[in-house]
Amino acid sequence: MTEGHAPPALDRRLLEKFLNPRSLAIVGASTNTSAMAGRLWVNLDRTGYRGRMHLVNPNRERIGDHRAHPGLADIDDELDAAIVVVPSRLVPETIEQCAARGIPAITVCTAGFSELGPHGAGVQQEFAATATAAGARMIGPNCIGVLNVADGYVPVPTYNITYRYTPGTVTLVSHSGGMAVNLLNRAQGRGIGVRALVTLGNEADIDMAEMVDALVDDEKTRVITLFMERIGDGERFLSAARRAHAAAKPVVALKVGHSPAGRRAVESHTGALAGEPEVYSGVLRQAGVVEATGLDELLNASHLLATLPRPAGRRVGVFTVSGGECSYFSDRATPKGLELPMPAAGTMERLGALVRFAVPNNPFDATGQIIADPGYARSVVDTFCGDENFDSLAVVTATWGPHDADQLLPSLIAAAEASSKPAVICSWSARHLTERSHELLDRAKVPVYETSDEGIDALAGLVRWHHDTGHVGPAARRRAPAADRPTASGVLDEWRSKRLLAGAGVPVVDEVLVDGAGAAVEAIEHFGGEGVLKLLSPGLAHKTEFGLVHLGVAAHEAGAAIAELDSSAAAAGLAVEGYLVARRHRGVEMIVGGTVDPTFGPVVMVGTGGTLAEHHRDVRFLACPLTPAEVDEALRSLRSWPVLAGMRGAKPDVKGLAAVVSAVGTFIDAGRDWLVAMDLNPVIVDSDGAVAVDATVVIHEETRE
Amino acid sequence: MTEGHAPPALDRRLLEKFLNPRSLAIVGASTNTSAMAGRLWVNLDRTGYRGRMHLVNPNRERIGDHRAHPGLADIDDELDAAIVVVPSRLVPETIEQCAARGIPAITVCTAGFSELGPHGAGVQQEFAATATAAGARMIGPNCIGVLNVADGYVPVPTYNITYRYTPGTVTLVSHSGGMAVNLLNRAQGRGIGVRALVTLGNEADIDMAEMVDALVDDEKTRVITLFMERIGDGERFLSAARRAHAAAKPVVALKVGHSPAGRRAVESHTGALAGEPEVYSGVLRQAGVVEATGLDELLNASHLLATLPRPAGRRVGVFTVSGGECSYFSDRATPKGLELPMPAAGTMERLGALVRFAVPNNPFDATGQIIADPGYARSVVDTFCGDENFDSLAVVTATWGPHDADQLLPSLIAAAEASSKPAVICSWSARHLTERSHELLDRAKVPVYETSDEGIDALAGLVRWHHDTGHVGPAARRRAPAADRPTASGVLDEWRSKRLLAGAGVPVVDEVLVDGAGAAVEAIEHFGGEGVLKLLSPGLAHKTEFGLVHLGVAAHEAGAAIAELDSSAAAAGLAVEGYLVARRHRGVEMIVGGTVDPTFGPVVMVGTGGTLAEHHRDVRFLACPLTPAEVDEALRSLRSWPVLAGMRGAKPDVKGLAAVVSAVGTFIDAGRDWLVAMDLNPVIVDSDGAVAVDATVVIHEETRE
Repeated sequence: MTEGHAPPALDRRLLEKFLNPRSLAIVGASTNTSAMAGRLWVNLDRTGYRGRMHLVNPNRERIGDHRAHPGLADIDDELDAAIVVVPSRLVPETIEQCAARGIPAITVCTAGFSELGPHGAGVQQEFAATATAAGARMIGPNCIGVLNVADGYVPVPTYNITYRYTPGTVTLVSHSGGMAVNLLNRAQGRGIGVRALVTLGNEADIDMAEMVDALVDDEKTRVITLFMERIGDGERFLSAARRAHAAAKPVVALKVGHSPAGRRAVESHTGALAGEPEVYSGVLRQAGVVEATGLDELLNASHLLATLPRPAGRRVGVFTVSGGECSYFSDRATPKGLELPMPAAGTMERLGALVRFAVPNNPFDATGQIIADPGYARSVVDTFCGDENFDSLAVVTATWGPHDADQLLPSLIAAAEASSKPAVICSWSARHLTERSHELLDRAKVPVYETSDEGIDALAGLVRWHHDTGHVGPAARRRAPAADRPTASGVLDEWRSKRLLAGAGVPVVDEVLVDGAGAAVEAIEHFGGEGVLKLLSPGLAHKTEFGLVHLGVAAHEAGAAIAELDSSAAAAGLAVEGYLVARRHRGVEMIVGGTVDPTFGPVVMVGTGGTLAEHHRDVRFLACPLTPAEVDEALRSLRSWPVLAGMRGAKPDVKGLAAVVSAVGTFIDAGRDWLVAMDLNPVIVDSDGAVAVDATVVIHEETRE
Repeated sequence: MTEGHAPPALDRRLLEKFLNPRSLAIVGASTNTSAMAGRLWVNLDRTGYRGRMHLVNPNRERIGDHRAHPGLADIDDELDAAIVVVPSRLVPETIEQCAARGIPAITVCTAGFSELGPHGAGVQQEFAATATAAGARMIGPNCIGVLNVADGYVPVPTYNITYRYTPGTVTLVSHSGGMAVNLLNRAQGRGIGVRALVTLGNEADIDMAEMVDALVDDEKTRVITLFMERIGDGERFLSAARRAHAAAKPVVALKVGHSPAGRRAVESHTGALAGEPEVYSGVLRQAGVVEATGLDELLNASHLLATLPRPAGRRVGVFTVSGGECSYFSDRATPKGLELPMPAAGTMERLGALVRFAVPNNPFDATGQIIADPGYARSVVDTFCGDENFDSLAVVTATWGPHDADQLLPSLIAAAEASSKPAVICSWSARHLTERSHELLDRAKVPVYETSDEGIDALAGLVRWHHDTGHVGPAARRRAPAADRPTASGVLDEWRSKRLLAGAGVPVVDEVLVDGAGAAVEAIEHFGGEGVLKLLSPGLAHKTEFGLVHLGVAAHEAGAAIAELDSSAAAAGLAVEGYLVARRHRGVEMIVGGTVDPTFGPVVMVGTGGTLAEHHRDVRFLACPLTPAEVDEALRSLRSWPVLAGMRGAKPDVKGLAAVVSAVGTFIDAGRDWLVAMDLNPVIVDSDGAVAVDATVVIHEETRE
């Protein structure tokens, strides 16, 4: 293993060598066409690879109709790429040979490395280093490589592909080979055009972040669709996602693997909230990635983003032939952020004149009366779809028998096709029982779904990317310089936590540490005659449950309160270090905290605070550094946003809260080398500002590597 | 319109006249076979109706191959049933004629009544009364009647049906005709056997509650599947649902129409929570109904409940061929209440010996290595599926090409079929691109799904009915007698609210109403030296926001606190009626309240309390009267249940809280004639009990009719 200079970037030229090489060696090609090593060249033959293919196998002279080379060294051609399908024990030496030949793009399909444990991981790390030291880049191992639909390049070692392709502009990137094939086939089966499929396997070299970044520059890719199990380098991923957003290329992602084992244990009690799913969801949203919750939503939203024009807003007009469908559609569309405004007055009037049993509305139930007369149906659907109050359209129909399908569907399809706005058709299917409908709908030039659920998810994805990512800036601000490590470590008590945070510019309640009643009285008087009195005991985080907090203490009560704290502490066996006297605040209780996430580094959390914060789980995570627009968007995404926005006459200072979030962001960002986690709970927000009244900071015993 | 005796019950004999009459008149039958009135008899002809059909149309002598009768009076036969498809203006006189003939079962398909407004509703009410006064029962109007798959009786006025039937034991009941057809066709298209489809339309006579009740006694129905837009008589519906549960017939329901317009405005501030969806969901769950959230989940869960044995528990073994699928499946199954335990030690050992690249686990990724050798695949899948740790099984596979489908699927299908436990296959499809897979899977004797999402939803429904309805008792207790109307009405202030509730046996905080500092001091001393002091002002509900509550007041502070309350009240322009002095409690803050729901009558709400209760929306509704098992199940269903169950050493008195809920239930039940709404927020639960510390009761100005 040599120490070379940095490996070449995965630029457009190099990506082309992976996705569409002019020449290719398949190392380990087999005559057993049932095995992975045989399937690969069979697939290239079947699909008519237009480049120069060379098969390498020292034990065969011919493989199929091809000559077999004993080794890579024997190929008399300049090689753009190699695909490695040798047994796992032979992979390291094969990579050496690739390196020696100077092959720039290596894909290793062979499995049996890091997925089996530390030994495999070591082997994998080593041969990856060999490749990059030689200036090569590598996809895999443990993957099925790439499949380039747009250019007809099908070098995959699996027969689980369909060979009938609809090219398009959606590029699918997946860690999992199995789910990648499901995605590709399912997309193609429903006519979703695909540019390419890229599987990354164990990501020994090229990871998802780098692939997304490369695809931003790929002219054939309009939408980047991710099935992700993990993100290795969160910062690089977010940067790539932001570049994609700036380039107007939507990134749509499905993240799997919310298993408890994947979460990090943190000491601070709200650390329990820092579970991966919430961190991933928050941070992906921050970077403008549209998160899908299921495989079909992932595909359908990607498809609409790749093929439909931008909807001017969230307002969808929904045409149906059933009152039950109107309710069903509304119930599902509204929670996903789609708006269903009433038709404009002119439309209401025209529709009212046209229809007998139907009542103009949105969703609009045209009822069965439109079935019999295609011309009449067309005039009704056109009148509705032409309404200026709608930014997009959904035409929803039922499971038709052949007679009604012929009567009705052509009018509905024509109306959807005629619209200049994004339009989809949802036509409930019953598989082989609704064949005639499928025949008619297959010819439609607008996206067609077999349920209204799917159409809603797809439209919601389209709208989310166009209208919920306005906070994503073209460039993130610079990261804060690393702060010096505090002298204390472990769980800092409330006093030390607050001092550390106040010193870093986080708004913390006015507070003094006193040793007895005299100083407490003085402090309470200084705070206007009322204070909050707490016991300070080393390492104690949850004071409330021990009765060690007195909320509204007047100056003359301080002595009695302190005596009570002392006796509670004695009962609980707690040492008394002193007493905190703080100014009293009343307002909305929020939580602001964060941690250094193993994936995304410094992340901030903001949400509904109080003693039940963990149970409400109304929190949002953001990766540092933060922009004001990102903080604003995060606050608006909370379930408790209406409380912050002011209800019942209260006017909480949202800007003050945003300032706390930003200051915490800077603190966590700067503390990334030594911080475990921190939280402020509650941060009290009133009309005058926002201030942390309790705080816990947890610091690593050792500086991170 | 005559005043007759009560119409006959929809018993088994009468249901048979609707679902399978020996003789039938179609009134309004038309020669126009494109129109509703023509389609009906065409469908009966096509499907070979085995009874005696009589067509009525005064303007025709023959219709198709049938003789047309001028009127009902001209039919010389005993008629079990009539189906009415005349124009809407002729419906009343047609019903008169049906009544005169003594036809027991009338179905009115014609639309144009209550769905168009009050006039239509009036007409409808009148002809329905005509029918019932004559001892007849009626389905409709504005529906497509019934379709009896099991007996081959297809009297529907629509061609949107498929004519190729899979009979079974699932009976579909729907308000909407359009969605009913989607449901039926979609069920039949996926091989879900149906006993019958019943559409209810405007429910002028027979409603969903009565139909469910009748189906409990229908021997051919094993599962009752509902697409519901509304429930007219909630009490009757719940009683029918409980009967179904007692008879071991699952009821699975999809409720649509969560529109804001459908919700009732109530004065009490937590009334905002009494929105229909939460009331419906809570009450349906209380009565053992499994609620589905989508059309396919509704069908698939019904299908499993109709065809699979009872799973012994929630533990599912999941066999896959992809690591990505393992994560995908786990992420979706766990939140739906399915458990994925590790395989037993013996299985781990046997699997470990069998597989090379795979790691024994659950979900288990057998990897692609099992594709090549069917015998080997069968031994791996059998080893996994035989594990005693699993109560049910999901075998999940990918989109296979024909070669691999033939290699692998027969082994997987055989393993699923061989299991004595409930087992399903999820095999991702790509429509026409995975045809060979479909051919093989269509022959499987276990349920097959085209996505793992669908399989998970179906299994979760199966498990929910068998393991989440243990609280449903065979009989509800008697309703409390109606209580006398209180003398006060409108929004009662805190003091009057609490007195009324305390008098009704609801645990309310120890409290006195005082007129000044002297009495306040005395009360605080009586309460142990600390009290809560509040201003009492007529009709004021939200004291906290005006600063009119002092939480921890010592006896000697009472004077100053009262002075402060006075000045706050003056600043807010509030009249002072007195001061409430209460014992101080600390603990978990819950909300307990309720209302008289337009559908379900007296309903109780319990959930997470505090000032943000509305935003957390962690509440559960129950219809009165309550059983202890129902209250217990409701508390356990809350997001905040872990707090009640005791976290961080606290031991809240859950039985005390349950007692509050039960007492509130009795109060609301007894007050059903005059109560608008009430809430206790918070009810404070500590280790000694649960007690309401704030209360609002709102009473109608007039007694309900």
